[in-house]
Order: sequence, then structure tokens, then C-alpha cells
Amino acid sequence: MKKGLFLTIEGCDGSGKTTASLTVIEILKKQGYDVLYTREPGGSDIAEQIRKVILDVNNVAMDIRTEALLYAASRRQHLIEIILPALKENKIVVCDRFVDSSLAYQGYARGIGVDEVFSINQFAIDNHMPDLTIYYAIDAQEGLNRIASRKNLDRLDVESISFHKRVQEGYELLCAKYPERIKVIDATLSKEEVAKKTYELIIEKVKENV
Amino acid sequence: MKKGLFLTIEGCDGSGKTTASLTVIEILKKQGYDVLYTREPGGSDIAEQIRKVILDVNNVAMDIRTEALLYAASRRQHLIEIILPALKENKIVVCDRFVDSSLAYQGYARGIGVDEVFSINQFAIDNHMPDLTIYYAIDAQEGLNRIASRKNLDRLDVESISFHKRVQEGYELLCAKYPERIKVIDATLSKEEVAKKTYELIIEKVKENV
Repeated sequence: MKKGLFLTIEGCDGSGKTTASLTVIEILKKQGYDVLYTREPGGSDIAEQIRKVILDVNNVAMDIRTEALLYAASRRQHLIEIILPALKENKIVVCDRFVDSSLAYQGYARGIGVDEVFSINQFAIDNHMPDLTIYYAIDAQEGLNRIASRKNLDRLDVESISFHKRVQEGYELLCAKYPERIKVIDATLSKEEVAKKTYELIIEKVKENV
Repeated sequence: MKKGLFLTIEGCDGSGKTTASLTVIEILKKQGYDVLYTREPGGSDIAEQIRKVILDVNNVAMDIRTEALLYAASRRQHLIEIILPALKENKIVVCDRFVDSSLAYQGYARGIGVDEVFSINQFAIDNHMPDLTIYYAIDAQEGLNRIASRKNLDRLDVESISFHKRVQEGYELLCAKYPERIKVIDATLSKEEVAKKTYELIIEKVKENV
């Protein structure tokens, strides 16, 4: 790799994005690529302290703009401590959820506005946008059905179905807005097909960069 | 009071802003005004959780943009839970440090940029700027000398003198930029004179509003 490659993985809960990306990362590692898989807070102690405040189910009084600022703060710290050092070492960094999650969840679904939430995230990421984002497209209801058996649901998981529907709409708007950066995979395909398409998208980007 | 009045108090550490404003608030209360004195996190449980992360002396890895986003998040929550409800009840709200502190400390002294820090604070306060801000002008070194005997200094108090000098410069720029909103009091005057000038500035604003 001539330089680091920054990839992000997005989708509604239950879209299978984590399973697919982990499968592909194992393949890439076997092929000799140096890959860092991470997700916020990703091992940053400070980012983890911030996430605890966001996700505490007792924090029902949390304002939606406070929530958006905390996500941006956690993102910033994770970027500085984890992502940028790995990119500097020319690694492939795959981050499970990044700025688009905030745009879909806080900007669109919570109703703050995509542009407003983008502005605080621009402050946070300071021009370090992903080179490629893969969006795993699934109907929000189907995604929720898939995760219904999970334990330890957090403050966002327990939101209403209408909230998760809006998240889906938010993502669809982002896909339309950033077609160059965001590539869409149909997450209702078989696990094997989803992993195959994920591999193809990533390896194409990697080969531009070797 | 026909409507609420939102006042903020700013200055370098050791400027005597808290002593002066508390003295004046006692007088206003005796005169029958309904005054809320507050400072971030000001009794908001969520804002307090955020401040703990900011001020923890162990969090030496904290990035300056993370810090700025956390201040904005804490400010937002304090505004929503404490300040806006009091203003709705037509109270005089006196807040010890607000958006100008972030502009002087994070924007100017830390070097992020005043405009950039203002942008995330605009997201946080959503047009709720103070009606009047009083700045207590003091040389940063003199302020530090005054607080040298304090115990329990936090992560910001223990910064170098050059940092506190830059904070002072940042405030001076803000005073020049917003002369209508920010009024300056010479904090090297006697406590009685500083309190008297504080009273005069506040009561003038109050009288416009009765």
C-alpha cells in the first residue's frame, strides 16, 4: 500500500454490515494486507467515557443536539487516537459506522437537519472523510427483526420502528447525495453474496492504491 | 419582568467575576427580582457527566477539538435543562461562563480558531445568545496569582502562564468584536467598585425590560 485507505461501513441495525465486513477483513488479512478493523470508541479510553454518557439508558433527559455533539466528540477522539495513526502506517482501516451514521440518525431521523449535523462533524473530522463507504441496504423493519433476540440493547436500539424507518430514509438520501463515495450493497442477499460484493468493492479501492 | 433576561459573566481565572456577580445577585434578590445564578454544568446531571470527562486530570490524551465539542455538549444540556426553563419564567439568569469562554479558551488560546469554535457553539445554543455579557478585565498573571492558593485545581487551571495570556488576548479580541453585547469592567478596582459597576450594568439592562 502506497498510503493508508480509510473505509467505512454503514447501515441500519441488523443489516449484517459487521458480519460481512469481518468476513472480508479475514480474507484480506490472509492475503497479506495490513487491516485495522475498528468502531467507535474503538479502544480510545476517552471516546469510551463519552460513549458511556451517550448510551446510558438512564439519560432520558438528553437533548438531541447534546447527543449529536457527543457523537462528534467521541468520533474526533477515536479518529485522533486510533484511525489516523493506522492510516499513517499505510494500513487499510475499516471503521464500522462513522460520520454518515450521525447524518442518518441525528441529522435526519432526529430531525436536527443533515447539514447542521454535518457542520459539527466537519469540525470533528477536519477533512478526514472516508475514501469509500459501503452502505448495506435493508428495510428497517427487517433489520429490527434480525436483532430482536439480541441482549443488552442500548438507548438507540430501543427506539420506535418509525425512528428506524427514518434512519433508513436518511441513509437513502445520503446514498443519492454522495454516489461517488457511498456504494450500496443489497443486504437481503445471502451472507456469501453480501461478503463477495463487499470484497469486490474493497479490493477495487485497494488496487487503485497499491 | 416582561420577559427573561440572559446575562453571562466572563473573565480569566482569578478575575473576581464570581465574587462580584454573587454580591450583586444578593442585592437584586433583596430588591425583589427573581434571579437564577448558574454555571455549567449547573445541576444538570448529564452536563455534569460530560464535565467530568473534560476535567479529569488523567485524560491527558484529549484532543483539543474533542474538548471543544464536549464543552459545547455540556453547554447545550445546561441551556436546555436549566437556562431556558428559567427564562421562560421571566427570570434574570446569570450564567458564570458561557460561549465566550469556549471562544477564548478553545478557539483562541488552544488555536482551533474563534470562528470554527463559534460554529459548533451556534449548533449548541441555537440562537440563544446572551442579552448582556460582562467581561472582568485582568492581567492573566495577576489572576493566576490570586488563585494560587486554591486547592483542587482542574486540568485547565494547571495550564502554563502563556496559555492564560492567550486566553486574555482572546477575550480582548471578543470585546472588540462584540462591543454591543460585551461590556468590560476593570477587575483590578476594589471589590466594592467592581460590584457597583456590575450592578449598574445589570440594572440598566433590567430596566429596559421591566
